[in-house]
Amino acid sequence: MTRVLILGGGGMVGQKLAARLVHEGLGGGPAPQTILFDVGFPPAGVEGPEQMTGDLGDPATAGRLAALRPDVIFHLAAIVSGESETNFEKGWAINMMSMWHLLEALRHEHNASGGSYVPKLIFTSSIAVFGAPYPEKIGDEFLSAPQTSYGAQKAICELMVTDFSRKGFVDGMSLRLPTICVRPGKANLAASSFFSGIIREPLNGIEAILPVPDTVRHWHASPRSAAGFLVHAAGLDTARLEGRRALSLPGVSCTVAEQIEALRRAAGQNAVDLIRQAPDEAIMKIVQGWPRDFDPQRAVALGFRAESSFDEIVDVYIKEDLPNATV
Amino acid sequence: MTRVLILGGGGMVGQKLAARLVHEGLGGGPAPQTILFDVGFPPAGVEGPEQMTGDLGDPATAGRLAALRPDVIFHLAAIVSGESETNFEKGWAINMMSMWHLLEALRHEHNASGGSYVPKLIFTSSIAVFGAPYPEKIGDEFLSAPQTSYGAQKAICELMVTDFSRKGFVDGMSLRLPTICVRPGKANLAASSFFSGIIREPLNGIEAILPVPDTVRHWHASPRSAAGFLVHAAGLDTARLEGRRALSLPGVSCTVAEQIEALRRAAGQNAVDLIRQAPDEAIMKIVQGWPRDFDPQRAVALGFRAESSFDEIVDVYIKEDLPNATV
Repeated sequence: MTRVLILGGGGMVGQKLAARLVHEGLGGGPAPQTILFDVGFPPAGVEGPEQMTGDLGDPATAGRLAALRPDVIFHLAAIVSGESETNFEKGWAINMMSMWHLLEALRHEHNASGGSYVPKLIFTSSIAVFGAPYPEKIGDEFLSAPQTSYGAQKAICELMVTDFSRKGFVDGMSLRLPTICVRPGKANLAASSFFSGIIREPLNGIEAILPVPDTVRHWHASPRSAAGFLVHAAGLDTARLEGRRALSLPGVSCTVAEQIEALRRAAGQNAVDLIRQAPDEAIMKIVQGWPRDFDPQRAVALGFRAESSFDEIVDVYIKEDLPNATV
Repeated sequence: MTRVLILGGGGMVGQKLAARLVHEGLGGGPAPQTILFDVGFPPAGVEGPEQMTGDLGDPATAGRLAALRPDVIFHLAAIVSGESETNFEKGWAINMMSMWHLLEALRHEHNASGGSYVPKLIFTSSIAVFGAPYPEKIGDEFLSAPQTSYGAQKAICELMVTDFSRKGFVDGMSLRLPTICVRPGKANLAASSFFSGIIREPLNGIEAILPVPDTVRHWHASPRSAAGFLVHAAGLDTARLEGRRALSLPGVSCTVAEQIEALRRAAGQNAVDLIRQAPDEAIMKIVQGWPRDFDPQRAVALGFRAESSFDEIVDVYIKEDLPNATV
């Protein structure tokens, strides 16, 4: 039976992915044996998978995880962008150094197995690996020039995953997720948190804070698409990547004003009236440097699919998450 | 007095740079106090600078070096491309992890100084951060998709230097040197060593090995240009880099056949007759993935200058290094 390990399995995307594996299986097969690793888990989490708690910042953790010899590892664990900016040491320790320790531990298992153990490693990178100034649409050959520590750490992990894969120790790839929207649950410390908040809070009848002008354009995909990207990547023949194992994924490019129009179409003016403008210089400064639009030809050619409008993204939240909302 | 530390100061480019600092000073000022750090030094090295030996792979070394509080650090130390490919652990330890330890030690000194200590850090990266397929000329916004461990390690160091600089702990930049040619002295373990060998050995009357077809096109600059790049970078106001602190530098794009023609013009057919074709699959495989030509507009606009023909590059060797050649 396929053994799957999800690092960051207690987080929002980790839980969506775990639920998908439980209900839909992996690669046309039955539900895999799934182990979730995280610092903690939500009280009413997905049922079925085994839960493991621990600290990725501890180098010994990597050895413990690699010794499980998972067939597929989804690496979603991270200190988010806002916190990586304010806590420099923690961001580098968790977002960069723990990836190094994990890759080294997996290389050790590979060598100990006589070379037969080569796990699939799907790493969630981010569009934060890019930095302004941008072309109108960011193409697949545009440079990584991150302007946050989070983006730098993600870009470094991409390079490590690619080189360890080139050497045959793992079979990895990095997925540069769009900003995931609409996130269910509470706001988090990510500078991008408001992109979800301005849709989620009004749909739940409470006030939302908008810290940036509504002309800000950004790149989005739903949590359902995020889980879909990850499962699709796990089934992909990485030879098709021809050595370029970091991919920008499809998404929806729209302005905050267009997000708000989609909310209006879905829930009316009363919902929109719950959005309160409260400019925040720190968040504006971070978001200003973020990508606005992509032309992700390689990912599309490889079969990755997202929503085609922000209305669809709102609809995913209303169908999947609003019924059980605990905002 | 300005204090300069050269990591890799015992190497070829380190010695060229040290000689330049001794004879020409730095930034229009007098010769700085210069400290060379390396695993060892050539017996007849540059006179004047202090020599320090040690192992960059030892994390304690970084603290020892940072405690010197140099005003300018030139980081030229590396395991070369060929050896990084065959000795995976050593390459990552010296080319990546030692940069991490150095940056952390410099951040510690910065904090201990109350924020007043912000050293200039000039890191020699490499065009090996790029990987095929390429456009005809690689522009300043082309992605880093290295196809060697050496290239991955250099690309990672670039990202670290940029982020530690953005945070104000150091004032760094990364220079993607062309292949330095004609290197004086003995062949080294770099896969690129033959690019120098086929000029240097014939000029010294001995046989040279050419392991690749003469149609191979590559990107070159002289050791004199390399020292010039480094000194120019040390004097540059890094605000002009606008956050993109890794630069591809100017050079000369030519084929091996064109190199050989330049040798013929400088030293005649007898010299050319000393080149022996001996195809080497391993070297061909590495070199095949290397860049052939660049359009380094940013570096040119910032005042970086190289030779404009391979004849000039041959001439630099004949004037500067051939008189004292010990091949």
